[in-house]
Amino acid sequence: CVLQYLPSTAVNTTLQLQELRERMRPLNISAYIIPGTDAHLSEYIAPRDARLAFMTGFTGSAGTAVVTQTKAALWTDSRYWVQAKRQMDCNWELEKDVSVSSVAEWLITEVPPGGQIGFDPFLFSLKTQEDYDVNLESSNRSLKSIPANLVDQVWKDRPPIPPDTLTQRSWQMKVEHIRNEMRDNPYQPTALLLSALDETAWLFNLRGNDIPYNPFFYSYTLLTMDKIWLFLHTDRVSEELKVYLNASCEGPLCVQLKGYDTVLDNLKTYVAQPGVKVWIGTEYTNYALYELITPQDKLMTSSYSPVLTTKAVKDETEQRILRDAHVRDAVAVIQLLMWLEKAVPEGKETELTASEHALDNKTQLPSDGCSADIISCLLFPVFLCCSPTNETSRRLTVEEMYLIDSGGQYLDGTTDITRTVHWGTPTAMQKEAFTRVLMGNIEISRTIFPSGTRGVNMEMLGRRALWEVGLNYGHGTGHGVGNYFGVHEWPVGFQGNNIPFRAGMFTSIEPGYYKENDFGIRIEDIAVIVPIQTKYGHNFLTFDTVSLVPYDRKLIDTSLLSSEQLQWLNKYYETIRKLVGPELDKQGLHEEKDWMLRNTDPFMTSGSSASVSFLFLNWTFV
Amino acid sequence: CVLQYLPSTAVNTTLQLQELRERMRPLNISAYIIPGTDAHLSEYIAPRDARLAFMTGFTGSAGTAVVTQTKAALWTDSRYWVQAKRQMDCNWELEKDVSVSSVAEWLITEVPPGGQIGFDPFLFSLKTQEDYDVNLESSNRSLKSIPANLVDQVWKDRPPIPPDTLTQRSWQMKVEHIRNEMRDNPYQPTALLLSALDETAWLFNLRGNDIPYNPFFYSYTLLTMDKIWLFLHTDRVSEELKVYLNASCEGPLCVQLKGYDTVLDNLKTYVAQPGVKVWIGTEYTNYALYELITPQDKLMTSSYSPVLTTKAVKDETEQRILRDAHVRDAVAVIQLLMWLEKAVPEGKETELTASEHALDNKTQLPSDGCSADIISCLLFPVFLCCSPTNETSRRLTVEEMYLIDSGGQYLDGTTDITRTVHWGTPTAMQKEAFTRVLMGNIEISRTIFPSGTRGVNMEMLGRRALWEVGLNYGHGTGHGVGNYFGVHEWPVGFQGNNIPFRAGMFTSIEPGYYKENDFGIRIEDIAVIVPIQTKYGHNFLTFDTVSLVPYDRKLIDTSLLSSEQLQWLNKYYETIRKLVGPELDKQGLHEEKDWMLRNTDPFMTSGSSASVSFLFLNWTFV
Repeated sequence: CVLQYLPSTAVNTTLQLQELRERMRPLNISAYIIPGTDAHLSEYIAPRDARLAFMTGFTGSAGTAVVTQTKAALWTDSRYWVQAKRQMDCNWELEKDVSVSSVAEWLITEVPPGGQIGFDPFLFSLKTQEDYDVNLESSNRSLKSIPANLVDQVWKDRPPIPPDTLTQRSWQMKVEHIRNEMRDNPYQPTALLLSALDETAWLFNLRGNDIPYNPFFYSYTLLTMDKIWLFLHTDRVSEELKVYLNASCEGPLCVQLKGYDTVLDNLKTYVAQPGVKVWIGTEYTNYALYELITPQDKLMTSSYSPVLTTKAVKDETEQRILRDAHVRDAVAVIQLLMWLEKAVPEGKETELTASEHALDNKTQLPSDGCSADIISCLLFPVFLCCSPTNETSRRLTVEEMYLIDSGGQYLDGTTDITRTVHWGTPTAMQKEAFTRVLMGNIEISRTIFPSGTRGVNMEMLGRRALWEVGLNYGHGTGHGVGNYFGVHEWPVGFQGNNIPFRAGMFTSIEPGYYKENDFGIRIEDIAVIVPIQTKYGHNFLTFDTVSLVPYDRKLIDTSLLSSEQLQWLNKYYETIRKLVGPELDKQGLHEEKDWMLRNTDPFMTSGSSASVSFLFLNWTFV
Repeated sequence: CVLQYLPSTAVNTTLQLQELRERMRPLNISAYIIPGTDAHLSEYIAPRDARLAFMTGFTGSAGTAVVTQTKAALWTDSRYWVQAKRQMDCNWELEKDVSVSSVAEWLITEVPPGGQIGFDPFLFSLKTQEDYDVNLESSNRSLKSIPANLVDQVWKDRPPIPPDTLTQRSWQMKVEHIRNEMRDNPYQPTALLLSALDETAWLFNLRGNDIPYNPFFYSYTLLTMDKIWLFLHTDRVSEELKVYLNASCEGPLCVQLKGYDTVLDNLKTYVAQPGVKVWIGTEYTNYALYELITPQDKLMTSSYSPVLTTKAVKDETEQRILRDAHVRDAVAVIQLLMWLEKAVPEGKETELTASEHALDNKTQLPSDGCSADIISCLLFPVFLCCSPTNETSRRLTVEEMYLIDSGGQYLDGTTDITRTVHWGTPTAMQKEAFTRVLMGNIEISRTIFPSGTRGVNMEMLGRRALWEVGLNYGHGTGHGVGNYFGVHEWPVGFQGNNIPFRAGMFTSIEPGYYKENDFGIRIEDIAVIVPIQTKYGHNFLTFDTVSLVPYDRKLIDTSLLSSEQLQWLNKYYETIRKLVGPELDKQGLHEEKDWMLRNTDPFMTSGSSASVSFLFLNWTFV
């Protein structure tokens, strides 16, 4: 790293590092770990939890930093390497293998034998703590839990908690359902501790505004068979909300409101009683809570709490309103794509960043905001997921591929869709890559599988057409999604730690391909998992795509598609016409309706032209 | 269970249960766990380790029994349910969920609070012990390690160790290679403990005859940077073998021979030294060895030892000779299939069980025996993997499907192949199921994937064509295979705990379909993983099938196959002709050559007839 060649986007972090190192010394720690999450192990975090960005300058959504007295390093994955290099100054080195074992190897090199490594137990999941333990085991370096966060002590203008009051819906049946799951469990837990933000928000049908793009609020819940303790910033609770929560009575369906910061003390008091057993989810409960639950026989663990596994399967109403939200979202995306298709070749007006336009579009609708930073990526390094700024926004042209990943928080559902388009003449390679990404999307979407199959065991279908010609992509293939809730909703999806697929779950399907410094492609749809009748068997499922926007025809090479793939595509386009057509009519969007009809014209299902002539030859010889 | 309805095949186990229970009492244990494995966690075990069969009567290769003072239960998977019901008497109940959590739930029900559950630490992997611990955790029931096996005390005529001497090949380079892996490891182990039987056999290029179908012998190895300790029954070591192992010198390439039973004492002494660290593989090292390695900082763990991961990738010579063995094996299987095809319709001579005939055939060749019990299954319950006995052997007919899974231990390689045939007129359902199983086999075989992809993430390709019509199978999709070695060789394969695929690994590919009480289908081939050139990318792999026997044409419905699948099939048949043809010529097997040519006739690559006419129609409209 040479100071004079640093990009202007690099953040000077010398001062905060100096202050952090001063605070490390009296604690006798040789290194301090700074994760990019909050005490609820959230993926999306509030500005006040952006400690990683404050310390490093790097604002990507995934990363871990470690600081010693002489060095500072950041670990982040390939999506963010370019961004990290642009944002970090010479104090920082970038490490590219994000596994805990890679961090541990670095620590073993940098920390002297016998040395201690400090961490904030609120920001480590039990699993992360164990991973570090396993990797440091027998190295003669050890972790030291430091509950008072050192970065917070250094961070003078740390943002406060938002002052908004919380909004609501209805909850007692959910509490009864979860209590039944506790009762039926052979290990007989007496309490369930909810620590992820979406657990408490779901259980009480409450939404807040603490975290960008996700309607969550800071909270914990301790649920027993006869009590409900809700830990939150009580000054934010309106009188109306207190009535809704039965906050002034004492029965099993009355919610006791407790201060957010009293959770440790209250948990400690609860655990001290004889005969109690607290159930926690190990994938996301923070270590500070976990370590209070001793001895071992007072602890019961599973990867995910029954709240998360119950929430993953949407009921009929939830499915219906989520499908409806996608119809309205399709209209917004179609408006945007049509507008860009006209505006970009004319070369005017397009300096308005596309994401702002999309946002404007979305917010014209009865939506509650965006479900994520809109990723609107062009020619610049493709793994950079950009929220356009003055520095990164620029005029769009007909010479490039354009990828837009957008989502909306509608009051009835959360949407997330990606389309990639080209307004000029794509190259043969671009067309082939796009078509193979689309083949991946279709192959997953049309697959029939037994109920209980895990996403991780099917996701290669999203990659196979790319693999055939030596291409691939470096990210996951899909994630769960909520109803006016998390846009990345665990534990559904195609990763190794996602739960098996069941009917009623919603997941994104999003293969892609990214050619560095050239172009990027992603096609993302949301699908709901539905039962399907098969010839011989029972209990089989498939995907039903609920995102309803056509793909760029110019980029599809139909000769690569199998006849099954073409049939799927035509059926999907029929569905778009059937569902989005009436909504466009209702909104009086005639030009958009024509655009949609043009773009959903059925393809010839004759298979590839090559294979047609091949077959024809065979046929003539029969 | 009603005594008078018990099948004649049930074994009376009252006496051994009574004696076991007597021995449990003074130890103050409420239950005793009897796994089906040996101290090396072998899949194939010697007769003297068949404790599970001795206690329960059940002779299947997978299962766990638990005995309390009043109850006795066996856990085994779906392949063995029918067999277990035929072999067990009324003392036993059959449990069908084989997970540790299912055993633990049963134990929590049957063992009173505070009760102890005895187990032999030699027969538990570290992982199994941990699984029990996790599942019993906080139940107030606990495991108690009892090193002296209780079943052995009851088992009066337990078979002795075979008296054969061991056979050999060359080993010093392997020791150096493994020491380099130890040196390069960041955790700096000072010793490697080899506990699986194939680890020691591979390292020293030794083969024995202690375990049926696998050329292994009882042994452990402790390898340090300057010493090699080999634990085995030293009276079996010939003078010649001592010379080969440099057993009388003291340097780093001299093998110190130690008694098999001294491994615990020697390991204890080694671990007591300061500064040592012992590397073990957690997937298969027994708990008795593991618990000696304390404190924690003297232990280093990985799922598999470097011996197993090194062995998994075959070098050029190993690949060549393993391919050669398959050519000779193909000749044997072709002989058998041709003979059956003639003999069965004539209805004579076929009372000789097919498996005996196959065995005769195989042993005419320079083979060292069978690589497994030949599974030769007919109409009887399909999950029963049968070694034919008087009771189960019967006349074959043209009315049924016949599945034969055979393998040979050639001195240059181990083979394993399954073909399913029909000598009469198969039903439409049989033909469709067979074709879909074949489609699964082809889809895996022809797939191109990045080096390092895990088998578990591709194995659904073997099931997808079956899933499409609601069918499936209940077993794994493939396993590694050795060179004159294990026929199920870990850690290669398609399971969750197999390692990622690399060029040079050999695996079976074996989808199937089993209709209970009706018919069974499996198609199994061995394939080697090879590099492949792709259009855009590097470091991609695919499978090259080395089993060389055609599939039953009568059972293939070509209209279901895609043109890619037909092309693959024709190319495979071309390879069979090219490689097996000359061997048949050399052995003067003219009739077999004709049979092979007839059965490898190329299929029309026109795709399905349905799709041809469909395409033709489209074409005429263009």
